[in-house]
Amino acid sequence: MTATQAEQVAMRHALSLAARGPRGINPQVGAVILAPTGEVLAEGWHHGAGTAHAEVDALSKLAPGAAHGATAVVTLEPCNHTGRTGPCSEALVAAGVARVIYAIADPGEASAGGAERLREVGIDVESGVLADDASALLDSWLTVQRLGRPHVTVKWAQSLDGRAAAADGTSQWITGPAARADVHRRRAEADAIVVGTGTLLADDPALTARQSDGTLYHHQPQPVVLGDRWVPDEAAVRKHPLLFLHRSGENLPAVLAELRDLGIQRVFVEGGPTIASAFVREGLADEILTYVAPTLIGYGADGTDRPALRSLGVDTIGDQRRLSVASVQTLGDDLLIVSHPFTTTGEI
Amino acid sequence: MTATQAEQVAMRHALSLAARGPRGINPQVGAVILAPTGEVLAEGWHHGAGTAHAEVDALSKLAPGAAHGATAVVTLEPCNHTGRTGPCSEALVAAGVARVIYAIADPGEASAGGAERLREVGIDVESGVLADDASALLDSWLTVQRLGRPHVTVKWAQSLDGRAAAADGTSQWITGPAARADVHRRRAEADAIVVGTGTLLADDPALTARQSDGTLYHHQPQPVVLGDRWVPDEAAVRKHPLLFLHRSGENLPAVLAELRDLGIQRVFVEGGPTIASAFVREGLADEILTYVAPTLIGYGADGTDRPALRSLGVDTIGDQRRLSVASVQTLGDDLLIVSHPFTTTGEI
Repeated sequence: MTATQAEQVAMRHALSLAARGPRGINPQVGAVILAPTGEVLAEGWHHGAGTAHAEVDALSKLAPGAAHGATAVVTLEPCNHTGRTGPCSEALVAAGVARVIYAIADPGEASAGGAERLREVGIDVESGVLADDASALLDSWLTVQRLGRPHVTVKWAQSLDGRAAAADGTSQWITGPAARADVHRRRAEADAIVVGTGTLLADDPALTARQSDGTLYHHQPQPVVLGDRWVPDEAAVRKHPLLFLHRSGENLPAVLAELRDLGIQRVFVEGGPTIASAFVREGLADEILTYVAPTLIGYGADGTDRPALRSLGVDTIGDQRRLSVASVQTLGDDLLIVSHPFTTTGEI
Repeated sequence: MTATQAEQVAMRHALSLAARGPRGINPQVGAVILAPTGEVLAEGWHHGAGTAHAEVDALSKLAPGAAHGATAVVTLEPCNHTGRTGPCSEALVAAGVARVIYAIADPGEASAGGAERLREVGIDVESGVLADDASALLDSWLTVQRLGRPHVTVKWAQSLDGRAAAADGTSQWITGPAARADVHRRRAEADAIVVGTGTLLADDPALTARQSDGTLYHHQPQPVVLGDRWVPDEAAVRKHPLLFLHRSGENLPAVLAELRDLGIQRVFVEGGPTIASAFVREGLADEILTYVAPTLIGYGADGTDRPALRSLGVDTIGDQRRLSVASVQTLGDDLLIVSHPFTTTGEI
């Protein structure tokens, strides 16, 4: 038996309920309880870590026994573990529901197994209803589950010959306004923005996501500063709407774990060269954005070179970091090359 | 009065005659002599430097007086100066032609003025007939006249981050077979191929233009080696079908002038980094081909860096060498970015 039309409608509604919850360490989940007649008895969604899961939120709106024989429509497989809240599978069993429909499976090692538990007690379980929509909604959260850390985008701007600046350190306007607008739009889609103290001291970036008229995007990324130098009192980052996190950056996996625990799913690494190279070198760059300006810089008369990337731990060509180019687009006079680390399985 | 249909047909034929002559220091030119009735009286073309010009070649096939009152259809404005041969304008005047049709003007400072001379003596002159076709035929020659030297294409292959090799000098297979085939096709279109002794000693290139099955293209570029190191007896370039030219390369304009005087119109600079940088630095790169492999290399653990370009004389960002990107194409896994030096007039 597959999902009825009423159940499909309920799932679409449950997805819109899910989207009301915050993106964070927990997934956004919605639930709708249907009477056997197809009537909506209750609805709920997850309001964020530490609060009730969606199914429990919905059930809590019903009188005891009211869900007996009902169908629970949930966007994610009901969890099977006791975290800050009890397992949803047990709550559904206790409520006496006869049928559970969900969109996508729970990828968590600890929390999965809810469907199996429900079937054990004779509850009818259907999965895969509007799975693509649910996957799209939870894209970043699912990526964090898969990677075990936030998704990392590393961005840099360079001349065609790979330089980030001229010998004297000047780099103004290497890339043009269309490329800069693209960077700000992507900052606004990120949960955190990472910069090294070298770049911070040299360029004093605000690390805000700004629209072309200079106003702030509604969503601002959490600023993260890496490096053991002091951030000056007058630094622009101190005026960011969010307080910045400052870590040495010597242990990047630890920084990413900390960000994950803060509910950060998408990290945007702005550089400069030392930080960008470190993420690439340690295999922590899932997506690479290279803004290529149509210009050549080379190195200076005194031999000073300012490449966009420094040591990647490549001493011989067999160790090169091969990429898979996802797209090349024109942004004004500049090019944006989007790539991912190449793997033989084709996965990121 | 514009060109008649018979004159247009004659011009198209004259263009095909022109193409029989060799590309070289002189332009390829064809000529057809038409009777007032439109009948073809004679045809000719330029067979190369030191031989008769096309008009004279055609007139030489006629009995004295046979061209009296005739129309001369020529692909290039008749010259007006005495070089190794006499001025064509005087030959046409002496033959008593009544009308001269030509496709494009002679851009030479010394040789131009033929049309004016013809008009002075009352000959009817028309120009611009099939001008686009004539320009296309003479594209490289016209470029040499405009630049005062051969057209220079500078090519290099690099990682996305601008490296030509890993720290230990290894660079095999940075770019793939499609990019390499593209390079060989372009070598076959060039009149000369330039390489530095550094690259010659490191890579021992054959400097031939080869098809994917390894056989030679019909046309092979003249190999030119720059640098003051000795070319080893066993070097592959010594087996090239053409003897190589060896110059120090300290005076690139002098090398280009020498190549121009050999009739070379298109120079393909293969590098390596020292030679490519020198051509860019001296403003002698008319076209830049950057084959970008989807890979990152950075520099080595010991700080050794092998960038595709070295010093360009840029010490501050205001001196950067801005480019205008003409095209970006995918070649297998690689990208080919074709660019030209940016000028405010939009010309190369």
